[in-house]
Formats: sequence, structure tokens, C-alpha cells
Amino acid sequence: MRIALGLEYDGSSFCGWQTQPGGCGVQDALERALVPIAGTSVKTVCAGRTDTAVHATGQVVHFDAPVQRPLQAWVRGVNAHLPDSVGVLWARETSPQFHARFDAVARRYRYVLLTRAVRPGLLRGKVGWWHGALDIDALRAGAAHLIGRHDFSSFRAAECQARSPVRELTHLDIDGDGTFVTFDLRANAFLQHMVRNIVGALVYVGAGRRPDAWMAELLAARNRTRSAPTFAPDGLYLTAVEYSPAAGLPASF
Amino acid sequence: MRIALGLEYDGSSFCGWQTQPGGCGVQDALERALVPIAGTSVKTVCAGRTDTAVHATGQVVHFDAPVQRPLQAWVRGVNAHLPDSVGVLWARETSPQFHARFDAVARRYRYVLLTRAVRPGLLRGKVGWWHGALDIDALRAGAAHLIGRHDFSSFRAAECQARSPVRELTHLDIDGDGTFVTFDLRANAFLQHMVRNIVGALVYVGAGRRPDAWMAELLAARNRTRSAPTFAPDGLYLTAVEYSPAAGLPASF
Repeated sequence: MRIALGLEYDGSSFCGWQTQPGGCGVQDALERALVPIAGTSVKTVCAGRTDTAVHATGQVVHFDAPVQRPLQAWVRGVNAHLPDSVGVLWARETSPQFHARFDAVARRYRYVLLTRAVRPGLLRGKVGWWHGALDIDALRAGAAHLIGRHDFSSFRAAECQARSPVRELTHLDIDGDGTFVTFDLRANAFLQHMVRNIVGALVYVGAGRRPDAWMAELLAARNRTRSAPTFAPDGLYLTAVEYSPAAGLPASF
Repeated sequence: MRIALGLEYDGSSFCGWQTQPGGCGVQDALERALVPIAGTSVKTVCAGRTDTAVHATGQVVHFDAPVQRPLQAWVRGVNAHLPDSVGVLWARETSPQFHARFDAVARRYRYVLLTRAVRPGLLRGKVGWWHGALDIDALRAGAAHLIGRHDFSSFRAAECQARSPVRELTHLDIDGDGTFVTFDLRANAFLQHMVRNIVGALVYVGAGRRPDAWMAELLAARNRTRSAPTFAPDGLYLTAVEYSPAAGLPASF
């Protein structure tokens, strides 16, 4: 039977999602924790392969369970074997055809940016940092240029392996309370470093170094070297993966 | 000249505020970082000696600087030498009589509690955990019994060294969003483990195990053994220390 799991994790403990020879990936930790419950090794497939130090509150994975267990065993049993920086939030049985990555219709990411003179102490590793104030209206004006279906080559990592640079960004909502600025993004899928590169460019706009129209220029240039530096992974969270309601997974959590 | 500093820290990296022979206290880290700026070792005095794993966003300390430095040196210079889990937020010159602990007229603490079936993963070490829902109205009704000037012996650690168990609790505000419950407390001063013991007892009320009047019974009993278990330090934050405006320190941060 095929099982889907919802996961959260603190990415600062891991070298990203994907399994690594040294076993430092979140996937490695999860697959090790599944062994005592499944009775054998199982391979997992995730919806969004987060990079080193990127966090998740809404990662989704699937795997084929070789044994029948109560769904709670895939939550509590696996949690008992996971490092305390990862947790299974829910488990559901899916159709045998369900695929965590290919069936996802949208992903949501949040970037949390601390904007103050002093670097983060309490929240080190959990937020990005900009040393001054940002103009929220300017950030929103810059963000508006990116909404829609575009070639996002200017916001794509050099090593990105996606076949097409075209993505449909449906939301880029920005909020600020004077200390933190949050960027909430939703797209059908994201290119590697896309959120961090978008945040990096928008910060230049919010800080008054560039006009908001610069975002449209960058997009049109389809050239990564034209943009701003990639922002730190620390403030990035994969918050949700959306599927057709027919998949029967929790809508949000 | 006497200098006051505002500090934040992630308590999970330290064995509490106070200096220890092994050097694992926040005070040890701060005093080590002060050496290169002060040119010699200095002793610091804090407003609230937080326990192991307790965090701070608003700790205040004072020390006597043997040299004159621009105030920014006590922020940026010290931060450059601190571990990244501690940060100096501000520095002020005070009167030579200012005392971070004795001059404090009130302290504020926040306790953040995650209430859900699954243990914290992303926020491990940063929140307390209760495995089920809590009734916010019941929590507030229980909290109301504690407001005022009382003998808080029932909520005091056995090893607490305070001369008197009497404290004046002016605020105990509770909020919840269905996932997190926050407890905001303000008192002239707190006994050791007082917040964690109050939260532990209130959780019994919020979970329906005890009526809200049990809080009044506990208070009247003046006996720690009657109460509920001490809650974990993970969710506890020293958020502010208040002084007379004459002290000239930032009011809140």
C-alpha cells in the first residue's frame, strides 16, 4: 500500500532533503526511521527537494509500505525513531498511483526576513537578515511584476536541472511589522534557488537601491547574472504542497 | 563608566545565565566577548538569571567599562565576538549607580506552548508541548486567581533562594490560535521556576483535569508538592525588564 506523510523539519540540522552518501539528508533520516516500522528499507519520494538549511512545515512524501500498519504507526512510531529536528505530522493511505512530486499542483514557500541593525541571535538559522528597514509598498510593487506565467531564468540557480525555466507564480504576498518581513509565494513549481533569488532582488527594491520596474527588467533579461545575490537559506520554509482534492490529503496544516 | 546592554539569546545553547566553572553560561560567553573591547576582563550583572534552556529577547545587564568606547563598539564589537546564539541589541551609558537587577521594577516573561498531537520538530527547544487542545477560557479563568500580590510558595522551586515568596503578578494574559497558546506574565520579580510551575498547573485546568478554582486552592496551600509538574524550559522567554524612565533605557524592544 502507498502511504503519504506530512513532515516538518529544521533544515539547519541537514544537508538538504536529498539522500547523500554520508547520510546527512532529511530523506536519509526519514528512511532510517521507517526501517523499524516497515520491517525493511523503503525508498521515499518528496514533493519539494529543499536545499541545505531550508526548513519545511508542509513537506509531503510518499512510499510503498511492504506491511500493513495502523496509520498512527507511521506517525508516532516513525517519530520515535526520527531525530528531534524532524517530525511526521500526519499519514494517509493513498491510491497506488499517487506521486508526491508529479501530482503536486502547487507549492507554497515562506521567506522570513529579520530587518534590523543587529544580526539574529535567538532566531539564528531560522530567519534571513537585512541590516536596515525595507519599504513594504516598494516590495509589493516589485513583486507585482513577477506574478503570472514567466520564464524565470533570471532567478534560477546555475546548477538547476529543471527542463523548463517557465513557472506560474500565482501569489507573492508581502507583509511587515517593522521588524520582520514575510514573503509568501505560491507557484505550480519552483526552480532551484528561485525564492531566495527573488527575495534577494526584491530587497534591493525595498531598500531603495533599485526601482520596482527593475524586477520586470530582470525577468525580461532571462539572465541570472543580472540579478542580486541569492539570499540565505535560513529564512526559507516549504509551507505547503497542494494536490487535487481527490488525493484525499489534508488541505493545509 | 557604567554601561547597560540589552541582550537576546537562544538558551538551548547554554547552561543558563549564570557563570559556571565549565564556562557554559550565557554570562561566560558575554564576559569572554567583552574582553577584546574592554581590553580587560569585566564582571556583568543581569536583571534575570534565566535557567538552563530558557531564552531571552529582553535580558538587561550592566558592567563597569574600564575604557571609553563609542556605544556602537559595545554592540557591534561585542557581537563580533559572541557565539551566534547570543546578540547585543543595544547599549546605553547609565548613571554609576544603575543596577540591572536591583533597579528593575518589573520583568516580563512569555511562555509559548505548542498544543497538538505531534511533538515539535521545527520548533524543538523553542516551545513547550502539550499533546492536546486546551480551553482558552478555562486557562484565563484559572489565571485570574493568580493576579495580585500573593505568597507564591506553591509555584516555587525547592532550591529557590529568594528571601520572600511574595510577588506581585500584574499580568497573566493568555492567547491561543488553535495550535499555539501563549502566556504573557508580568510581575515585580519572579521566583525560581515560577512561570513554568504556573503554566504546568494552568495546563491541567485548560485540559479539564482541574476546575479553575484549583489555582486559588494551590495558591492558598503555599505548598509546592500540591501543584502540577514543572513545565519544560524550552518555551520560556524573558521578554522585557522594566526600569524607571529616569534610567534612560529603551522602553521595549
